[in-house]
Amino acid sequence: MSSSILEDLAATIRSRRSADPAVSYTRRLIDGAPLKPAKKLGEEAVETVIAAMSESDKALTGEAADLLYHLLVVLECRNIDVADVLKELEARVGTSGIEEKQRRSTR
Amino acid sequence: MSSSILEDLAATIRSRRSADPAVSYTRRLIDGAPLKPAKKLGEEAVETVIAAMSESDKALTGEAADLLYHLLVVLECRNIDVADVLKELEARVGTSGIEEKQRRSTR
Amino acid sequence: MSSSILEDLAATIRSRRSADPAVSYTRRLIDGAPLKPAKKLGEEAVETVIAAMSESDKALTGEAADLLYHLLVVLECRNIDVADVLKELEARVGTSGIEEKQRRSTR
Amino acid sequence: MSSSILEDLAATIRSRRSADPAVSYTRRLIDGAPLKPAKKLGEEAVETVIAAMSESDKALTGEAADLLYHLLVVLECRNIDVADVLKELEARVGTSGIEEKQRRSTR
Repeated sequence: MSSSILEDLAATIRSRRSADPAVSYTRRLIDGAPLKPAKKLGEEAVETVIAAMSESDKALTGEAADLLYHLLVVLECRNIDVADVLKELEARVGTSGIEEKQRRSTR
Repeated sequence: MSSSILEDLAATIRSRRSADPAVSYTRRLIDGAPLKPAKKLGEEAVETVIAAMSESDKALTGEAADLLYHLLVVLECRNIDVADVLKELEARVGTSGIEEKQRRSTR
Repeated sequence: MSSSILEDLAATIRSRRSADPAVSYTRRLIDGAPLKPAKKLGEEAVETVIAAMSESDKALTGEAADLLYHLLVVLECRNIDVADVLKELEARVGTSGIEEKQRRSTR
Repeated sequence: MSSSILEDLAATIRSRRSADPAVSYTRRLIDGAPLKPAKKLGEEAVETVIAAMSESDKALTGEAADLLYHLLVVLECRNIDVADVLKELEARVGTSGIEEKQRRSTR
């Protein structure tokens, strides 16, 4: 089975652990964990929310990519495999776990 | 080439457009677009940030899955293909576009 | 000198520490500190951002009030006096400290 | 009746509408409305959430001040009087409107 694009990207991010902090933004983010990646994840989420409400498809696509990138960095900093997140997501969506879980909690 | 897990999940979410709103949380989210999915994306991001700072790996894995799910719903509501987001992400990480773009903008 | 409205409200929130959790939302928030008030603060901020972008004045006024309320609860849970926050804010705005501090950090 | 500190600060922010954008961060924020102030409000909220979870009282006080500042700018950009927000907040807390409203909506 081929690994997913997200897993390949996670591997690239992992390899940046040994990059030069002077040139690698990813390395600097990792060095500032957990605060820096978490903060940037939150900021990119705000930008994605705004783009979803009132910006172009191109802008939203870019913000979504930035959000995914920072999520991968957050996971890497905790040594969490993105494959486990995808498995969890699959379980929730596939077995309609999200349907049930969320139905209870929606206002 | 096999499609990614994320694309498969996006397809499942798309199929929920025709689900019964009484039983499908996804359908109700889509019906409330753009406000409802955007708001939930923001909420899940806050929970992911908190989990990244101070919760267990299991909790962070779950929050990350919820964040990804709501991002997929936001994209679906705008008819944006997640494959385009992944391509954008690949371009940024692979060609070290993020390294460069972000280096300029980091405080 | 009269105390500010915000300080009066902070005092009211403080008094809810001894309220019945079965009837007081504030008490339940405080009991769930730091996670619950922080999470709600984040959620209300997302709603305020969305309202600022695309909702009515009435909606934004309501969201801003909710945001302020949850900020007061967060401060109370840490025993931080809102008067100290206002003093800090005054110093930043009044002496144009924010002008200077922020000028450096704006992208 | 004396005006509140928050109203005084709102007046100062309003006066920055005619400041030189080259020196006034507030003026540049206002010029970028609604996107720029909304985005900064979201970012400061993320930082406040993180500070509430895991930073010092001094850090949280500073983040809360920044959050309030950006909220005042957001309100000013919409010509919403902060006094109306405080009135709304008073009604919710004072008459336990928040207690009731929120009890219904809490998960």
